[in-house]
Amino acid sequence: MTKQRGFIVPIGGAEEKEIRDAKILRKFADIAGGRDARIVVIPTASQLEDTGRRYEKFFEGLRVREVRALRIETRSDCEREDWLDHLRTATGVFLTGGDQLRLSTTLGGTPVTNLLRQRNAEGLHIAGTSAGAAFVAEHMIVSGDSGRTPRADMVQLSPGLGLTNKILVDQHFRQRGRLGRLMAALSYNPRLIGIGLDEDTAAFLGPDDVLEVSGSSAVTILDASGLEYSSMHSADKNGPVSVIGMRMHVLVEGGTFDLETRQARAVEQAELAGEAAKGDS
Amino acid sequence: MTKQRGFIVPIGGAEEKEIRDAKILRKFADIAGGRDARIVVIPTASQLEDTGRRYEKFFEGLRVREVRALRIETRSDCEREDWLDHLRTATGVFLTGGDQLRLSTTLGGTPVTNLLRQRNAEGLHIAGTSAGAAFVAEHMIVSGDSGRTPRADMVQLSPGLGLTNKILVDQHFRQRGRLGRLMAALSYNPRLIGIGLDEDTAAFLGPDDVLEVSGSSAVTILDASGLEYSSMHSADKNGPVSVIGMRMHVLVEGGTFDLETRQARAVEQAELAGEAAKGDS
Repeated sequence: MTKQRGFIVPIGGAEEKEIRDAKILRKFADIAGGRDARIVVIPTASQLEDTGRRYEKFFEGLRVREVRALRIETRSDCEREDWLDHLRTATGVFLTGGDQLRLSTTLGGTPVTNLLRQRNAEGLHIAGTSAGAAFVAEHMIVSGDSGRTPRADMVQLSPGLGLTNKILVDQHFRQRGRLGRLMAALSYNPRLIGIGLDEDTAAFLGPDDVLEVSGSSAVTILDASGLEYSSMHSADKNGPVSVIGMRMHVLVEGGTFDLETRQARAVEQAELAGEAAKGDS
Repeated sequence: MTKQRGFIVPIGGAEEKEIRDAKILRKFADIAGGRDARIVVIPTASQLEDTGRRYEKFFEGLRVREVRALRIETRSDCEREDWLDHLRTATGVFLTGGDQLRLSTTLGGTPVTNLLRQRNAEGLHIAGTSAGAAFVAEHMIVSGDSGRTPRADMVQLSPGLGLTNKILVDQHFRQRGRLGRLMAALSYNPRLIGIGLDEDTAAFLGPDDVLEVSGSSAVTILDASGLEYSSMHSADKNGPVSVIGMRMHVLVEGGTFDLETRQARAVEQAELAGEAAKGDS
């Protein structure tokens, strides 16, 4: 029996945590099994002691079956068998915000990330917010200038967790003016799809490689595959970069983007198509 | 004899004013005739007393033939024949920064703007920086939220000077995170081309409706003509808006965009094409 990959859910940071309004976290818990969910929280990106505990309390409030924060702080923590056992039986894993370099330097190449990749391929759902969102894909933005036009050397990339090599995530997107740095990063290699996540907004990337937006703001999709030209290869260090032919979509709640066909659709378009189909019958 | 329209030169604000490095203003003076240029400065947007005088000094430094700032402050000032005479013999007019509503409310529908439109059609070159840039086209952005995803009601439009109805200008573009509001404005009617001007960067829009970028940063071109869908008509007041299929280019010094063919070209592409053509001969 072949198993389906689990959801990959990057969240733009600052997600709503009041139980009543917590659309994104509630949706993640539902996908992970609802009352039967076993959630593991990895607060490694954060330097605050109570980050893991805060998410534990939140998911307890949703009455999931089990929630456990693993305070992984060192690479040797990543070999603790009792903690790996939690990951082996989890139905959902949540990576908190903080610093994405703490995630990659602490977890990279350890049994924890090996297990996360393997289990996600078999169906484990993995979400991350802010630094956690940056970390989920194969390529990760470490840092870069905000609020600027694309420039050479304005953004630093690093290998990430590696759940998919098709997207490049940037978070706090509009709030911190990160269009320029995401465009610069995509100019290095237009193969990847740029996913700019506003705060309190998530991309639920399903096993079919279609992502659906959830949350109070928007996800900006940058599709560089039709790029006619960029001067990234020849621009001066810190010089501005020409980019010709970027395709852009802004998607809100319910909007979808198919990573294979590169087709974006707003929820109202899907509804209209549905009505048209009904009209045909 | 038919005459060519003069250049229309919106500048993103904060343009370099040290004579040695003042690429944009020097280029404008050159186009207006260099040593033979007769420049009129209109400082109406500004509330600072010395704005007009500062530009006078600058253009004097460039040794143009004549420069004169007209301190138009009221609608009746717009009927002063001696000032209109200056406009009748000018080869270049420069609109300073400040508040674009001061420009439209003071100058709109007066002999001054009638004369500017008529003389631009006959060859007078007109530049504006910041508020002055916002004002040059038929449609003008009055105000709007910065640093946000496109939302309904986030941007207010007003009729402007009306030198062209093909573009919608926004200035201080990347510095103030105005992509969202320009996208929102274009979603109202995808016919217009959005021109997002970074500071110290200008679009020199020639009589052939090809614009060329000059300055230290970039111009972001938003071409909404291929838009598949936007939810602007149905979005809640202040709700986020879906936008599917926006085309975007970032152009730096020497890059061009043709408003008719909607074709963007980086300067290096033009050079390569030139070399290829040489190779053919």
